[in-house]
Amino acid sequence: MDLDLGWLLRELIPGSLRALDLVGVFLNGVLGGTIARRQRFDLVGFAILAIVSALGGGILRDTLLQQGPPVALTDPWYLGTALTGALVAFVVRLEGRWWNRTYLVGDSLVLGCWAAVGAGRALEADLGVLPAILLGVTTAVGGGMIRDVVVGQVPAVFGGNTLYATSAVFACLVLIPLHEAGLETAGVYAAILVGAGLSLVARRRRWTL
Amino acid sequence: MDLDLGWLLRELIPGSLRALDLVGVFLNGVLGGTIARRQRFDLVGFAILAIVSALGGGILRDTLLQQGPPVALTDPWYLGTALTGALVAFVVRLEGRWWNRTYLVGDSLVLGCWAAVGAGRALEADLGVLPAILLGVTTAVGGGMIRDVVVGQVPAVFGGNTLYATSAVFACLVLIPLHEAGLETAGVYAAILVGAGLSLVARRRRWTL
Amino acid sequence: MDLDLGWLLRELIPGSLRALDLVGVFLNGVLGGTIARRQRFDLVGFAILAIVSALGGGILRDTLLQQGPPVALTDPWYLGTALTGALVAFVVRLEGRWWNRTYLVGDSLVLGCWAAVGAGRALEADLGVLPAILLGVTTAVGGGMIRDVVVGQVPAVFGGNTLYATSAVFACLVLIPLHEAGLETAGVYAAILVGAGLSLVARRRRWTL
Repeated sequence: MDLDLGWLLRELIPGSLRALDLVGVFLNGVLGGTIARRQRFDLVGFAILAIVSALGGGILRDTLLQQGPPVALTDPWYLGTALTGALVAFVVRLEGRWWNRTYLVGDSLVLGCWAAVGAGRALEADLGVLPAILLGVTTAVGGGMIRDVVVGQVPAVFGGNTLYATSAVFACLVLIPLHEAGLETAGVYAAILVGAGLSLVARRRRWTL
Repeated sequence: MDLDLGWLLRELIPGSLRALDLVGVFLNGVLGGTIARRQRFDLVGFAILAIVSALGGGILRDTLLQQGPPVALTDPWYLGTALTGALVAFVVRLEGRWWNRTYLVGDSLVLGCWAAVGAGRALEADLGVLPAILLGVTTAVGGGMIRDVVVGQVPAVFGGNTLYATSAVFACLVLIPLHEAGLETAGVYAAILVGAGLSLVARRRRWTL
Repeated sequence: MDLDLGWLLRELIPGSLRALDLVGVFLNGVLGGTIARRQRFDLVGFAILAIVSALGGGILRDTLLQQGPPVALTDPWYLGTALTGALVAFVVRLEGRWWNRTYLVGDSLVLGCWAAVGAGRALEADLGVLPAILLGVTTAVGGGMIRDVVVGQVPAVFGGNTLYATSAVFACLVLIPLHEAGLETAGVYAAILVGAGLSLVARRRRWTL
């Protein structure tokens, strides 16, 4: 039996990145909703925190890139997926060991994916390496940062947690040379591996900056 | 005597929407100034809080739509009207039953108007229904949200108050089908009626989500 | 010996404005880092606070002007200079009389420079006088404002300090007529003199609004 390599390249690989991206939107929507529940917000608060958590980083990136309205508004899947996350968090109280582990792994994969995608968009807009890293990190951690500020907390990413933004920086550093060499998709996969791996190891070993 | 229907359609109706829009800018300028007074800010604080309260929602919408600088900067009336509101709040301490009632009714009408205008702009930029609702609600409640965050409070719109953002959602839901059917102005009027009505009834009956 | 006036006009004067601009980015990067140190943030917090302090005002201005990505991202010097400031604040604890005086004078010059440059960009984008003042003040004080909000403080610029945003307003008022008369560079220099002078005198005499 032949493995249809063309199909793999044309469909499965970009499709799996797309799926991971939407998983990220969903997970961060759930996280926003969970924080809304803790703060005893109403449905409006659930919706806004889910949108900010899930889409804030990408919206910030696209607003800075100034190449038309944010993908979060033009792609019909994003808002719906974020709001579905909010609804799930509203109905179910997600907690326990199984959920925490799933969330941790999912969130780490998404961190690398978003950092790589953000850095790639910056390179495609002809920005330099440093701005590309900044926009990659912004895509990955910007939504959580805005959410923390909006509920009156100093962003967790500023200190005291294990390597999170730093993992996003490394994901960008992996992507950039591969992207410049024309290996966009391979670069994103490598960045996800490095970003997620570093983030998970740092959490287990309690590595901090 | 003939009622000049043409004049009504060409002048009075768009003119009255424009007036309501500026009334909204003024009222929210006053509200920003009133909050600045409560926090014992100086004139700079009055001006910034008035601008943020009155124009922040529209600025956020226009920044996301990316079709040129925000109307708040290109329309010569907006900034002046917001600053006039700040000045009034600086000179006069607005309080008492009469002011509260006037404010309540004015603010409810403006809520519907801004939600409808924001959603309409999104549709004209070829965005879908969900993004149009988001941008409508952003126009209506975004300025107050940013203002609350800037003075160190969790945005009131997140929970505990009567249907406010929800009224803006309903105003958008009324506008969108009418706008798609080519009835832009009628849609805005209908949205104002529904948004203001729901907001006032919710306040009186203490409806919350 | 001849003084080569052409060289002065073509090279030295624009060059010195550029240098002052980068000095401003560096000083505000250091300031952001110093605040990160006080809050016990990690290196990520140092970097983000430095970038927000040093580049936030210009980024906000460019995002509102919507004429392409912010200069902070397209000019290769800005991000590096801000991060160098963060690194200096991370390594050295800058304090004492000499540093405070240097900082005060530098910051006052930069205040006038940024206000004038911001107002000039707004005029070049065909905005009116009031929006030009708003964008000038935003360029000068916007970064500090966002930084204060992000670390959970009410922005210092809202009240209780000596004339700071007000000095920026006066710098804009000096620039605008000169800019409209075609004297862009002279206008910036005059604005720096007035802005810095007013800011320093106000601090010494404890003038407040």
